[in-house]
Amino acid sequence: METSTFDIGLAPIGFISSCFKEKFGTPRQPGLAPSASARLQLVEPFNKREMVRGLETFSHVWIQFIFHQALRDGWKTTVRPPRLNGSERKGVLATRSPHRPNFIGLSAVRLEGIDFSDGVVLELGGVDLLDKTPVLDIKPYLRDTDCLTSAGFGWLSSEFSEMEVVFEDGARQFCKDYQRATGRLLAGLIKEVLRLDPRPAAQRGRKHEFAMLLFDVNIAWQVTDGVCRVVSCSRVAPDDSF
Amino acid sequence: METSTFDIGLAPIGFISSCFKEKFGTPRQPGLAPSASARLQLVEPFNKREMVRGLETFSHVWIQFIFHQALRDGWKTTVRPPRLNGSERKGVLATRSPHRPNFIGLSAVRLEGIDFSDGVVLELGGVDLLDKTPVLDIKPYLRDTDCLTSAGFGWLSSEFSEMEVVFEDGARQFCKDYQRATGRLLAGLIKEVLRLDPRPAAQRGRKHEFAMLLFDVNIAWQVTDGVCRVVSCSRVAPDDSF
Repeated sequence: METSTFDIGLAPIGFISSCFKEKFGTPRQPGLAPSASARLQLVEPFNKREMVRGLETFSHVWIQFIFHQALRDGWKTTVRPPRLNGSERKGVLATRSPHRPNFIGLSAVRLEGIDFSDGVVLELGGVDLLDKTPVLDIKPYLRDTDCLTSAGFGWLSSEFSEMEVVFEDGARQFCKDYQRATGRLLAGLIKEVLRLDPRPAAQRGRKHEFAMLLFDVNIAWQVTDGVCRVVSCSRVAPDDSF
Repeated sequence: METSTFDIGLAPIGFISSCFKEKFGTPRQPGLAPSASARLQLVEPFNKREMVRGLETFSHVWIQFIFHQALRDGWKTTVRPPRLNGSERKGVLATRSPHRPNFIGLSAVRLEGIDFSDGVVLELGGVDLLDKTPVLDIKPYLRDTDCLTSAGFGWLSSEFSEMEVVFEDGARQFCKDYQRATGRLLAGLIKEVLRLDPRPAAQRGRKHEFAMLLFDVNIAWQVTDGVCRVVSCSRVAPDDSF
């Protein structure tokens, strides 16, 4: 049995521009934050219109990508999945952790459109993809072979408890103003992201304030008695990447 | 936007042993030949029991792999999908063709068991994986996020016509004897593979005999008036790889 490494000279076919600028707060699976959108810009020599001919007929696509922010930390044999509150270790290959051998990610996302005005740009929805993610492949989602309705849930329970999310007055007003200025539905996105409880399992007992970046907005929030309060929002810097 | 290649030093975590010894006849998608089984042997330093702890609770897994037999032929911007009888070109990213940028494949397959008697071996079912396929990643199939029941069918119609498959007497007898000697359900597998019509679109008009290798058996078959006849079977060499 071969054991040598295998050099095929991977070349990203494109890069993601996303509202998620940092790992903290980025949904752990696609589809959990339906409002989360991203653009996938193809790069040379892949940014040809013919490359995606017919792709527009599909409602969903697979994105295969590199977990680029996990690269420097490496991977471990076992991990503590957040869905189990960090209480148990599972083999890394029994999870979807980014800290895995070869650091390859897989997400099924909505294909909302293809923009040819400047090269080839795929407009994606329901993403869990970080900004600047290098993309290795795009494949059509084939319902016949990819949607396995007989599949079990494994060690993941099928229930998924969500947090209640409330806004303080200043934060609510900020979101309204921001939406008027940028067209971005920030309040909805904040709700979708926070209801998933992005806190690391080890910090769920603490009451301190958390900060999270969405687009160019820093969001301060706190969890008290199982309710998540959005305390304040503030713009950090002009965002020209999305 | 970066355009440089991206070297992360891919290392296969394991290799496939499969009944499909050559590309011709290998199903074009997983699940189409339910009897097609394979073993995935993990290699150093990944062949540790802890790596897959908890994976046994899932009914299905994703295999991300290299289309190793497509590497030498390279890829093209557009391809002629067999499902369209080769009559139309689609962008390679709008298909699941193996001849694609980065040559990465994706298959959802049944996880039938994990064998720890000699390292770590995953027993897989319903595969479309060639023998000796290098595997880059194994992920649990998550029904919540991977099974998109609202997905459309794109340019693929939802119907999928199948060929009738009949056996000549000698071929039928061979399969019975082979099954008695090896335990392999050869006749069922032949039927599942041939009903999908593995002929290249360009050769569907011709009446000549085709040959296909399954396990260590060479199978001769012919299509007449839309019916596939298994003409003969013969053993080619002792098969110790499966």
